[in-house]
Amino acid sequence: MDLRVNITRIVDRLNAIGEIGYLKGKGINRLAFTEYDKQARDLIIKWMKELNLQVKIDQIGNIFGIREGVSKCKPVMTGSHIDTVLNAGKYDGVYGVVAGLELINVLNENNINTKRPIIIAVFSNEEGVRFSPDMLGSSVFIGRIPINDALKITNSEGEIIEQELTKIEHKAITNSVDLNPISFVELHVEQGPVLEIEDIQIGIVERVVGINWFEIEINGNSNHAGTTPIENRIDPAITASEIILFVRELALDKNNKLLATCGNVRFEPNMINVIAEKVTLVIDLRSANQNSLEKAKDRLFEYLKCLMKKESVRISFKQIVDVPVTSFDQDLLCHIENITKMLDYRYRRITSGAGHDAQLISNLCSSAMIFVPSKDGISHTPKEFTFKNDLEAGANVLLYSLLEQANS
Amino acid sequence: MDLRVNITRIVDRLNAIGEIGYLKGKGINRLAFTEYDKQARDLIIKWMKELNLQVKIDQIGNIFGIREGVSKCKPVMTGSHIDTVLNAGKYDGVYGVVAGLELINVLNENNINTKRPIIIAVFSNEEGVRFSPDMLGSSVFIGRIPINDALKITNSEGEIIEQELTKIEHKAITNSVDLNPISFVELHVEQGPVLEIEDIQIGIVERVVGINWFEIEINGNSNHAGTTPIENRIDPAITASEIILFVRELALDKNNKLLATCGNVRFEPNMINVIAEKVTLVIDLRSANQNSLEKAKDRLFEYLKCLMKKESVRISFKQIVDVPVTSFDQDLLCHIENITKMLDYRYRRITSGAGHDAQLISNLCSSAMIFVPSKDGISHTPKEFTFKNDLEAGANVLLYSLLEQANS
Repeated sequence: MDLRVNITRIVDRLNAIGEIGYLKGKGINRLAFTEYDKQARDLIIKWMKELNLQVKIDQIGNIFGIREGVSKCKPVMTGSHIDTVLNAGKYDGVYGVVAGLELINVLNENNINTKRPIIIAVFSNEEGVRFSPDMLGSSVFIGRIPINDALKITNSEGEIIEQELTKIEHKAITNSVDLNPISFVELHVEQGPVLEIEDIQIGIVERVVGINWFEIEINGNSNHAGTTPIENRIDPAITASEIILFVRELALDKNNKLLATCGNVRFEPNMINVIAEKVTLVIDLRSANQNSLEKAKDRLFEYLKCLMKKESVRISFKQIVDVPVTSFDQDLLCHIENITKMLDYRYRRITSGAGHDAQLISNLCSSAMIFVPSKDGISHTPKEFTFKNDLEAGANVLLYSLLEQANS
Repeated sequence: MDLRVNITRIVDRLNAIGEIGYLKGKGINRLAFTEYDKQARDLIIKWMKELNLQVKIDQIGNIFGIREGVSKCKPVMTGSHIDTVLNAGKYDGVYGVVAGLELINVLNENNINTKRPIIIAVFSNEEGVRFSPDMLGSSVFIGRIPINDALKITNSEGEIIEQELTKIEHKAITNSVDLNPISFVELHVEQGPVLEIEDIQIGIVERVVGINWFEIEINGNSNHAGTTPIENRIDPAITASEIILFVRELALDKNNKLLATCGNVRFEPNMINVIAEKVTLVIDLRSANQNSLEKAKDRLFEYLKCLMKKESVRISFKQIVDVPVTSFDQDLLCHIENITKMLDYRYRRITSGAGHDAQLISNLCSSAMIFVPSKDGISHTPKEFTFKNDLEAGANVLLYSLLEQANS
């Protein structure tokens, strides 16, 4: 038990990928299927080949680096993604991929063969910024989204995934890669403050929250701001404000075990001296408890009905995302917990508030996630940071977890 | 006293101008200094020449049609504007101009000469949609904005007024026209519901409300919607909502004699799953009472201070418009009131909630306004409408008012 990852190599690889798509003052902008994404993919493939991994790319551009096992058993898999949001940091996604490469490095250096093959996966378009939906690569991998539908996805700029993949030369011509893993473990930064606040090194992710997105369109009577008496107005700005404050109250009530956010609001015509005609907003509700989510949805519905009467507005309501709570495999979680104990790291069970590829892969095979702390709990910003010691701890847990699974 | 305007000619002229810039389903889009504006200006000038008016254009493109008087006394003036907002109706501004042309028509037909010259004015860029500020033509006319500054005004598209005026060939090469009117009366649709609700034909506008615009920028901590505990958030969406509801409460309190609107809100980065970094909103406060406006401003300041403590947000605050209450000339108002009585129209004194050119001209000479009802109180929409009878009543009041003033 004296194998350990080389943290310098991990950090060097994080930095090398982190330079691709970095714009001064704007963080990293390595959106899926762009030239920057291609450069990062090419570098990952180069590293995989240097590590003697067999590289396969499937039709949606998912990359798999395969280290053969000594038996014909099903492979074990780890990995994450290397695409980013706009103004991103360098850890989200990339950390899980380079920690995977590092564990291969350690096994190679120590001439360790495993019974099962080990696969390092890089899933396409996890962030979903340039093309919707997010977690697209893993959704295609498990067959939830048919490849022909995925390739046709077009964004608001009129760009089509198939063309973009062809442009960056990362689209396989052959059929989907059939890898059939027995397990999947994804190592990732927490992107939240819990581990840091409690001074814990390893989060063993039991579940991913369920996510509901509701698009709410409020129609009022647009009119001149200077000539319409206040009592005669039907102003959707008022209703939108009341909804935003209502959902915060729902989330502040500890009984509800809920997160609620409204970060996307559009006013039309959005003119200073015109009462808005229409306000469209999206409410993001999350909970680790499916029942809480259902209850919150009901209460939001009821509140909107009240508002329609109280403010005389017309409200239309569309659920645009409905991801149920995902629970990871208890056996796999216990296995990771035992390894963490053995390595003597401080750990706790935790819930992920963000979506991850592992959530999709859990539909295919026994899956779990490992979190390391995020400084100040922040992510999706250039200020995203995780201390070296924590990066090292997470990668060591991943190393032993994959090694044991690959020999089981 | 048996002179009367010809309502058919008024409506025909309204319709003819209303076709210029009309787009099916999108109302009239005759923004200042565009090709559509040029076409409408050319038509107005053609009509002025047919009515034997002498046409002068000043350097900002204000058009003046001058009917000579028999003496060398100072002229009397009426008029308004013919530029529109986007998706506009056909009455706002244009009505005042064509009613002016109609009164010239009546005087010509009846071979009536007046002591003083009568001028029909068409002021440039009243709406301020394409180039800021609004009421630009009248501001230049009274010397509040130097012509050389006005010509250099550039919009967000990089268009410059001087170039646009040259393009449409409506820029005088000579110096500003020196007309020196003794009075100005502007006839306009109310754009609000008061006259219609009270079944009144003529509004005698005593004053124009004061207008304050406050741009409020709220900075919070942007973060992931799924990973940031609700208690740890500094979310500017919450603060923005509280401000919008607070200013409505201010306006609903009848003691405050105030209108308050928030029709312009911008979220950044405006993503569904990201707590906003910044929300910028503009509050439009109006009152016919200068003191109410000052008090409301103070209360808004105080509330923002409270919010900064309560929500831990950073708020910055900029007053971007500060137009004081304008009171029109009492003698001129009484004169208009007497004419309205004489013509036996139902009338009331009224306050204008919107800004108008007359507000600026009141700094130069004795000024006033006449309002006619707007159906359903709406304006700045293709649904803007005023009944023929009301258009006729307003134009008759204008006819007698100008005739009496021109002979005084």
